[in-house]
Amino acid sequence: MSELVHEGNIFILYIPIGFTVSKVAEINSLLDIVESHEGPTALIITSKNHKIFSAGMDLKEILKEGGTAEAAARVFIALMKLYGRLLAFKVPTIGALNGHTIAGGLMFALSLDYRIMARGKSTLKMTELPLGMVLPRGGDIVLTTKLPPTVHRDLVLKGKSFSCEEGLSSSIIDELVEPQDLMRRARELANELSALGDKKDVYMCVKKSMYYDSIETSLEAKYSRAEWKAMGEEEPKL
Amino acid sequence: MSELVHEGNIFILYIPIGFTVSKVAEINSLLDIVESHEGPTALIITSKNHKIFSAGMDLKEILKEGGTAEAAARVFIALMKLYGRLLAFKVPTIGALNGHTIAGGLMFALSLDYRIMARGKSTLKMTELPLGMVLPRGGDIVLTTKLPPTVHRDLVLKGKSFSCEEGLSSSIIDELVEPQDLMRRARELANELSALGDKKDVYMCVKKSMYYDSIETSLEAKYSRAEWKAMGEEEPKL
Amino acid sequence: MSELVHEGNIFILYIPIGFTVSKVAEINSLLDIVESHEGPTALIITSKNHKIFSAGMDLKEILKEGGTAEAAARVFIALMKLYGRLLAFKVPTIGALNGHTIAGGLMFALSLDYRIMARGKSTLKMTELPLGMVLPRGGDIVLTTKLPPTVHRDLVLKGKSFSCEEGLSSSIIDELVEPQDLMRRARELANELSALGDKKDVYMCVKKSMYYDSIETSLEAKYSRAEWKAMGEEEPKL
Repeated sequence: MSELVHEGNIFILYIPIGFTVSKVAEINSLLDIVESHEGPTALIITSKNHKIFSAGMDLKEILKEGGTAEAAARVFIALMKLYGRLLAFKVPTIGALNGHTIAGGLMFALSLDYRIMARGKSTLKMTELPLGMVLPRGGDIVLTTKLPPTVHRDLVLKGKSFSCEEGLSSSIIDELVEPQDLMRRARELANELSALGDKKDVYMCVKKSMYYDSIETSLEAKYSRAEWKAMGEEEPKL
Repeated sequence: MSELVHEGNIFILYIPIGFTVSKVAEINSLLDIVESHEGPTALIITSKNHKIFSAGMDLKEILKEGGTAEAAARVFIALMKLYGRLLAFKVPTIGALNGHTIAGGLMFALSLDYRIMARGKSTLKMTELPLGMVLPRGGDIVLTTKLPPTVHRDLVLKGKSFSCEEGLSSSIIDELVEPQDLMRRARELANELSALGDKKDVYMCVKKSMYYDSIETSLEAKYSRAEWKAMGEEEPKL
Repeated sequence: MSELVHEGNIFILYIPIGFTVSKVAEINSLLDIVESHEGPTALIITSKNHKIFSAGMDLKEILKEGGTAEAAARVFIALMKLYGRLLAFKVPTIGALNGHTIAGGLMFALSLDYRIMARGKSTLKMTELPLGMVLPRGGDIVLTTKLPPTVHRDLVLKGKSFSCEEGLSSSIIDELVEPQDLMRRARELANELSALGDKKDVYMCVKKSMYYDSIETSLEAKYSRAEWKAMGEEEPKL
C-alpha cells in the first residue's frame, strides 16, 4: 500500500517495494493530489521497508496472475507511463533511496529529479537482461536520458550491480548520506526546491523542454513485436 | 553595439551584454562577413564589459516594448535561430568569457565550439525557471547537446549558479585562465584551429552530422501553446 | 583477409587494418557465423598487425579504384551499415585494441560493446575533418551515442589525437592493460559475458532499446547532397 503524508510545502509518498497495475494506479492517484496542491510544493518518495526502496515489478503478484509475459507486460506498460509522467512532473521530485533500488525501481528512481541514498550495503542494478527479459525503450529511455553512456551500458547491458558509493561516482545518485540523515536531508532539499514547484505549469513546461523525446517514448510504452518474439511469446492484445 | 575586428585569419566579435531583436540581426550580419572570409578562419566572441560576457535578453529593452511575454518571445525566437546557426557555423568558434554568462547568454556561449573563461567571481547560470519563465526547447537543446545530464539538470531545473571553477569541472567551460591571459589564449587557440575553417562547407557539414537534431530544433524556434498557457498569456501572432 | 577463430563460447575475429567494400562483406559473413552459434557466445575483435588495430578505410585500395569521392563513399556506406549491425549485435562484443585505432576504425571500435586497449604509443583519433573530408551522420552517430559531448567534440571537430591513457580517462576505452595481457583479459571478459549471448534475440532487443535512433541512422547510411557539394563533387549514383 502507498501512503501520502503532507507536511506544509512537502509531500512524502511511501511506495510499496513491488509494483503491480493496481499499485501504480494508486500511486497515480496520490500524485494527482500533489500536483493539485496550491503554492510552493515538493515531493519526496521513499519506502518504509528496512532493506528495499523498490524492487521493480512485484513478481509474486505476476506469478499469481499466471506468470505470463502478458501479465508482466501489463505492469511494465503502466510503469513506463508512470516514468513519462514523472519526467514531466509539475513539482520538484526527490527520491530518498532507503535501500536496494532495482530494475523497474531504478528506472522509477531515475525518472525523479534528484536522488539521495542512504549509505550501506544497498545496491543499484538492472536485472532484465541477466534474467533473459527484454527492456522496452519506454523504460530504457529513462536511463539513456539521465546517465552517462558507459554507466547506462554497465547497468543495462553488463547487468553490473553498483554499490551506493559507485552509484555516487557514476552519477546514478546525487548524494550519499548516513541512513539516520536520509529523511532530514531529503526534507531540507525539498524545502529549498519547493518554491520552484509554485508555478506548476512552468515547471512542467521546462521539464518537457529538457526531456521532450524521452517523455514521448515513455508515454507511448509499447512493446514491439520483436520483443514478444524474443521472449518466445505471442504478442498479446493489451 | 556589436563590433567586428579582423586580424589575419582571426575575427573578434564584441557583443553587447544584452540581446534584442535588432542586436541579434546585427550579430547575424557580422557573422555573414566571417563566413564569407576566404582561407583559414576562426572566430572569437567576447564582450567589452568589465563584469559581464552576456546577460542574455536585454530586459530593459523588452520593458520599453511593453514588457509582454510576446516582446520577450520575439527576442528569444531570434536567439534560438542564432543558436541553431552557431551550432552549424562554418568556422571554429571560441567564446572568450570575460565575465558573467547568464541565461540566453549561457546558451549562446554553449552554441559555440569552445569556451575559455577568465578566472574570477563571474558565474554561469540559467535564470528562467527561478524567474517563473519557460525555457523553449530550441534554447534548452543547446544545453542537452553540450552538457552531461546532471549538469544540465543543475543549471536549468535547480537554477544553480556555477562558479568558474565549477564550470570547468562540470565541462560547461573548456579552459580557465587568468583575466590578463584571456584574449592571448583565445587568439592562440583560434590560430591553431583556423586551418579547419578553410574548407568552410566541410566544417559545416561535419557539425551538421554532429548536431543534426539539435540544429533543427533550434532553427524551428517555436514556443508551444502549452508554454504560453503556462505563463498565463494568450499565444501571440509572431 | 579476415579470420575467425572459434574457442568454445568465444569467437575471435581478426580484421584487416583497412576496410574495403569486399573486406566489409567478408566481415559480415563471419559475423553471420557468430550470430548463428547456439548457446553462450561472445565475440572478441582484434587485428594481427603489430602497430595498428584499424586505420579505417583502405585508402590505397580506394586510390586503385580511381580515388574518387564515390569510391570512398561506397566503402563508407558499407561501413556505416556495419556499425548499425554491430550496435544491435546479438552477442556481447569486445574490441581488443592492439594498436592505433583511427577514423573509420575508431567508429568501428565504438560500435562494439566494450573496448580493452594495449598500453603503449598507440593513439585514438578521427582524421576526417583535418583531411578535408566530411563525416556522414551514420558514422558520427556512433560517437554521439557512446561518448561524453566534449570527448566527441575533441575527437571529431578538433581532430585531437588521444593517447591510450587519455582514451581511458575520456571513456573512449574501458580498460588499459599491458600488451602481453590484452588477449588474456579479453578472453576473461568474453567468458564472463558469454552467458548474456545465449538468448540472442533478447540481447539484440535490449540493444535496440538502448540505441534505437542511432542504429536507424547508421543503417540508413546516406551521404547528403550537401556533403557531396562540400567536397566539390557531383552526387554519385550509388
